[in-house]
Amino acid sequence: MTEHAREPIRIAVAGASGYAGGEVLRLLLGHPSYADGSLLIGALTAGGSAGSSLGSHHPHLLPLADRILEDTTVETLGGHDVVFLGLPHGNSAQYAKALPESTVIIDCGADFRLSDADDWERYYKSPHAGSWPYGLPELPGAREKLTGATRIAVPGCFPTVSSLALAPAVAAGVVEPRVTIVAVTGASGAGRAPKADLLGSEVMGSVRAYGVGGVHRHTPEIIQNLSALAGERVTVSFTPVLAPMPRGILATCTAVTTASEDEIRAIYEKAYADEPFVHVLPAGMLPQTGAVTGSNAVQIAVTVDADAGQLVVVAVIDNLTKGTAGGAVQSMNLALGLPETAGLSTVGVAP
Amino acid sequence: MTEHAREPIRIAVAGASGYAGGEVLRLLLGHPSYADGSLLIGALTAGGSAGSSLGSHHPHLLPLADRILEDTTVETLGGHDVVFLGLPHGNSAQYAKALPESTVIIDCGADFRLSDADDWERYYKSPHAGSWPYGLPELPGAREKLTGATRIAVPGCFPTVSSLALAPAVAAGVVEPRVTIVAVTGASGAGRAPKADLLGSEVMGSVRAYGVGGVHRHTPEIIQNLSALAGERVTVSFTPVLAPMPRGILATCTAVTTASEDEIRAIYEKAYADEPFVHVLPAGMLPQTGAVTGSNAVQIAVTVDADAGQLVVVAVIDNLTKGTAGGAVQSMNLALGLPETAGLSTVGVAP
Amino acid sequence: MTEHAREPIRIAVAGASGYAGGEVLRLLLGHPSYADGSLLIGALTAGGSAGSSLGSHHPHLLPLADRILEDTTVETLGGHDVVFLGLPHGNSAQYAKALPESTVIIDCGADFRLSDADDWERYYKSPHAGSWPYGLPELPGAREKLTGATRIAVPGCFPTVSSLALAPAVAAGVVEPRVTIVAVTGASGAGRAPKADLLGSEVMGSVRAYGVGGVHRHTPEIIQNLSALAGERVTVSFTPVLAPMPRGILATCTAVTTASEDEIRAIYEKAYADEPFVHVLPAGMLPQTGAVTGSNAVQIAVTVDADAGQLVVVAVIDNLTKGTAGGAVQSMNLALGLPETAGLSTVGVAP
Amino acid sequence: MTEHAREPIRIAVAGASGYAGGEVLRLLLGHPSYADGSLLIGALTAGGSAGSSLGSHHPHLLPLADRILEDTTVETLGGHDVVFLGLPHGNSAQYAKALPESTVIIDCGADFRLSDADDWERYYKSPHAGSWPYGLPELPGAREKLTGATRIAVPGCFPTVSSLALAPAVAAGVVEPRVTIVAVTGASGAGRAPKADLLGSEVMGSVRAYGVGGVHRHTPEIIQNLSALAGERVTVSFTPVLAPMPRGILATCTAVTTASEDEIRAIYEKAYADEPFVHVLPAGMLPQTGAVTGSNAVQIAVTVDADAGQLVVVAVIDNLTKGTAGGAVQSMNLALGLPETAGLSTVGVAP
Repeated sequence: MTEHAREPIRIAVAGASGYAGGEVLRLLLGHPSYADGSLLIGALTAGGSAGSSLGSHHPHLLPLADRILEDTTVETLGGHDVVFLGLPHGNSAQYAKALPESTVIIDCGADFRLSDADDWERYYKSPHAGSWPYGLPELPGAREKLTGATRIAVPGCFPTVSSLALAPAVAAGVVEPRVTIVAVTGASGAGRAPKADLLGSEVMGSVRAYGVGGVHRHTPEIIQNLSALAGERVTVSFTPVLAPMPRGILATCTAVTTASEDEIRAIYEKAYADEPFVHVLPAGMLPQTGAVTGSNAVQIAVTVDADAGQLVVVAVIDNLTKGTAGGAVQSMNLALGLPETAGLSTVGVAP
Repeated sequence: MTEHAREPIRIAVAGASGYAGGEVLRLLLGHPSYADGSLLIGALTAGGSAGSSLGSHHPHLLPLADRILEDTTVETLGGHDVVFLGLPHGNSAQYAKALPESTVIIDCGADFRLSDADDWERYYKSPHAGSWPYGLPELPGAREKLTGATRIAVPGCFPTVSSLALAPAVAAGVVEPRVTIVAVTGASGAGRAPKADLLGSEVMGSVRAYGVGGVHRHTPEIIQNLSALAGERVTVSFTPVLAPMPRGILATCTAVTTASEDEIRAIYEKAYADEPFVHVLPAGMLPQTGAVTGSNAVQIAVTVDADAGQLVVVAVIDNLTKGTAGGAVQSMNLALGLPETAGLSTVGVAP
Repeated sequence: MTEHAREPIRIAVAGASGYAGGEVLRLLLGHPSYADGSLLIGALTAGGSAGSSLGSHHPHLLPLADRILEDTTVETLGGHDVVFLGLPHGNSAQYAKALPESTVIIDCGADFRLSDADDWERYYKSPHAGSWPYGLPELPGAREKLTGATRIAVPGCFPTVSSLALAPAVAAGVVEPRVTIVAVTGASGAGRAPKADLLGSEVMGSVRAYGVGGVHRHTPEIIQNLSALAGERVTVSFTPVLAPMPRGILATCTAVTTASEDEIRAIYEKAYADEPFVHVLPAGMLPQTGAVTGSNAVQIAVTVDADAGQLVVVAVIDNLTKGTAGGAVQSMNLALGLPETAGLSTVGVAP
Repeated sequence: MTEHAREPIRIAVAGASGYAGGEVLRLLLGHPSYADGSLLIGALTAGGSAGSSLGSHHPHLLPLADRILEDTTVETLGGHDVVFLGLPHGNSAQYAKALPESTVIIDCGADFRLSDADDWERYYKSPHAGSWPYGLPELPGAREKLTGATRIAVPGCFPTVSSLALAPAVAAGVVEPRVTIVAVTGASGAGRAPKADLLGSEVMGSVRAYGVGGVHRHTPEIIQNLSALAGERVTVSFTPVLAPMPRGILATCTAVTTASEDEIRAIYEKAYADEPFVHVLPAGMLPQTGAVTGSNAVQIAVTVDADAGQLVVVAVIDNLTKGTAGGAVQSMNLALGLPETAGLSTVGVAP
């Protein structure tokens, strides 16, 4: 018996009744370290739902159905080795300050994603809390910062897919630094707080755009990621579209290019050759979100429209898995020194 | 009693078992000229489905449920004043030649949409049949050509929404002649021929891109429309995306601009001020396809992303109504001298 | 010009921001008396949404999009000839008392549906307000009471479809007075108040039962209707199931029988021979809710499972149209002496 | 290193391009014996799709995407220790005869489910092939027959959920032997062969009944299971309903009872106390199919409608997992002496 086995890692999840928290728990329940007992699921906390059973919110998490949600407080979250935060933005800093520096805090919210305080204040209308290592290991330099980290900012779902879709082309300088992204998302990206315009009756049978014109809060995060790769400011037109499905994002990313499709695909294949979760599709195949449901995979198709002189990259992820909780668990694995892919799969649930 | 009442208009629908044919019939059943007996629904024809009842294909068309589908032949279609064609492309020319010149033929297919033979042959891999007056009355000059016409090419669904979304800006020269269109569509746009990748199990819970990279056949039609307005070749990057819903298209159209949102909205409001079916939304409202289900309306939101220097126009239609059969009936009304809006509505069925 | 034309009927809709109110307005916009100006849409009122535009709630009602919602008060509703009430239960009686007896009040809520005060109090936990003529003209004796009525209780959506599905068999005494009904409904039946378990993410990709075990409030209403027809207490096991679609109910109704399918179908065909909205499907055809979307039609399939000794009737309606607002407008037509079918259709919007 | 590790189990899947075959592969990819190399995925075969890549049919099975499908022949399937058959009915017997008796053959089709030849011939219109141990370990006596078996008939999806929903009550004799089952299913239950009435446009936004009146082929299988438990012929009225979702079945099962809800729930809790996949919900909770998506769980709610004198049991499964491939893998585990739950989960993917 190893020392590891004698001192299991204790994990708390704040915001366990929400979609991000639920997905973190779903992945932890399938994590090999949970199966062998070296990882324990400790406190599950919530705001208004404290006192109710986890099963009343997440009946799909059958092994934890009888767990009672506790209040989200420093006391409740204390005494854990890892704390996942799935809270409304602006709420993470207080826990980050109060919990020991050795506690691995993985923030699924936005608070520590942006490094530029002005960007933060412009888009979030509140004081900037700072920035943490960015939980997208596939970006150049990111994996190193996550290994052994104790504070991690999980990227937004749209920045995850958009950045991975465009990173190789932008980093290689084969596109002009002006990109257009239209990303179609499932409804879970809007969270679980009840709103009339997110009712099933409103969402089903209809698509709608929202946050048009650069006002969506994920815009500065995408710009931050791509500009760092380009070494210059990248202009981004980002439009999110809500589609009638629970999960998944499909991002269509276009940028002016003079390179050929073969050239650019070669750049992508090289960039992602060793990435366990990023799959560049062969020529002629196009991705669908249904293929990545519940998985941590990113599927990317690279196309050049020679008539239009445009690179068109289409990429899909599951917004709750790779786009939130999967990225969070992948980052946790790096932080704890576990195999990066532990508990994560490239196999989706389809149809 | 007027002469009109004594000699009702007889209408035939070829391809009545398909979605375009069914939607033409749905609209005709609600047409005031059908209600007053001045418009009769004559032969309903089909290919492989000939001999079966219309009700077995379209149980929603209850008043015609017992009608038996006939074979699509020149003989069956002859003797009608108006013939709607909802046939696979390449099949319309034979009926156009064989039917009298006085018969109003309204082709819901692609055969007579493109004026450039090279474009046709490149995208459709077959000889060019010619071009007919284009059934999109809202484009400059189009309405005049449709009034009293006896041959009408109904536009494709994507070109309908994309052209109306961009026409005012392109015609006014306030955008660069290079546009990016990502259009999310419901599944009925793919027609009713059974294919495994269009099964409900495949379509639900998933979005996917298709025809990426300028290869979709609606691309040259969009280029044709926009270039005529611009007076120069407009470059178009067009990506269609399939969403899990039966009907509706939402097109997100972006182009570089230096004009302000107010300037451009004023251009749109002026351009569409007298159009009964095109509605420019007030600032701050964004369209959803569910609001136009079953209606002939076009709802358009005009936004400028000043940071990105981009005009972002989001427009919605019902692909089967304004995008196909509604445009066809609107064109029929013009051809026959009926009120243009007869039998068509701006009221959708929602939620 | 008739006197009628000089004094148009003024209609108010209370609860206009909800689904029932919106559907009433959709139907009124297509009513021939609205088109000819003899019917005017007056005050539109709401609770918390007062002050906002109708278009912000119902963007599909384009001709009324700029109307501002007023507070629901006796003053606002006064001065109209017809008042539709789409209010939470328990709120209708106050308006019924305060408005003149000559005002036609059509209550889409439950308050005046049940004649038995004990039933009301058991299921609604509040004092019984009384009972009004029941807005289901197809039930024996109902049409007469609705003609010229000034107070009308619109039936619940489940009782509408269930009662019409079983009435002929129960009235003819060809089934035992013990029926089982499982009714699958779209999400709009639950209304528009935001609740987490009705979010699109929860509803899509999932079906669930609710109100199991006779506790759903529509149960006593179904029993009331069927028992009146049977002349004895009919036992009803009723289970509603929520399906991922906005509209539609499909009710599967079973009861023990010794009669043959042909015998029973003949009873149904005779019972509904003159009903404009009820369609008994030919043998071998089964109904789907998609065929009645937006229409006032009821489609019914009659089957006998000889092995099981059971009659199985499957019936579909649109819960918002025939199940609520369509039944309301049909009743209004009877109350006002207009043609019963005016503004209502048997043609659905499909696919 | 154990002997087991030196001689891995080789598994073939016939019909790998279909939904059943795809789901078997999804589960095998997550099986711990696949992870440790003691279970190998060998030949993947198909009919018309032979020669194409698995990825072109199942892009969600990323680790196997490049595998090429072979023809389904005795030669291809030979040389494996386990063969899963996902073939149209009537095709399994030939492989069962030709393959060695020691090969574990697990038939996801219907061929060997019914023990009564007359039942088979009446419902399937072909000669009876025989009957095999029935792959529903939770039925009394079934688990013993599956342990070490080399021929296994996987139950139909509707019989799985219906039998488990009713078994405890029927076996205990607390209901009359006449049951009514209405089961709402996702579209994948109809398989992947392209048919117009299963197109996404037809399925979305609509529910429909099919196989009404006892004609569905799963009816005799349900009767067989329940009658064996009751010790007398049980009469079954079974109606399947197609709902707009890819996966999941919710079965509402009613039967006359005089017992109380508490009595019957106690019977269920006792019957399933040791079953790893069957979960009896606490009073007041009702199941939803979304909670079991991708999992092997069965969630059951037990309710008594005292007014109606009826037991109403509502149960959910994923039709592709517990209803097909999960039941198949569970049976395989028993046949091979592996832990019964290996590779199977009670955690669903939601929302």
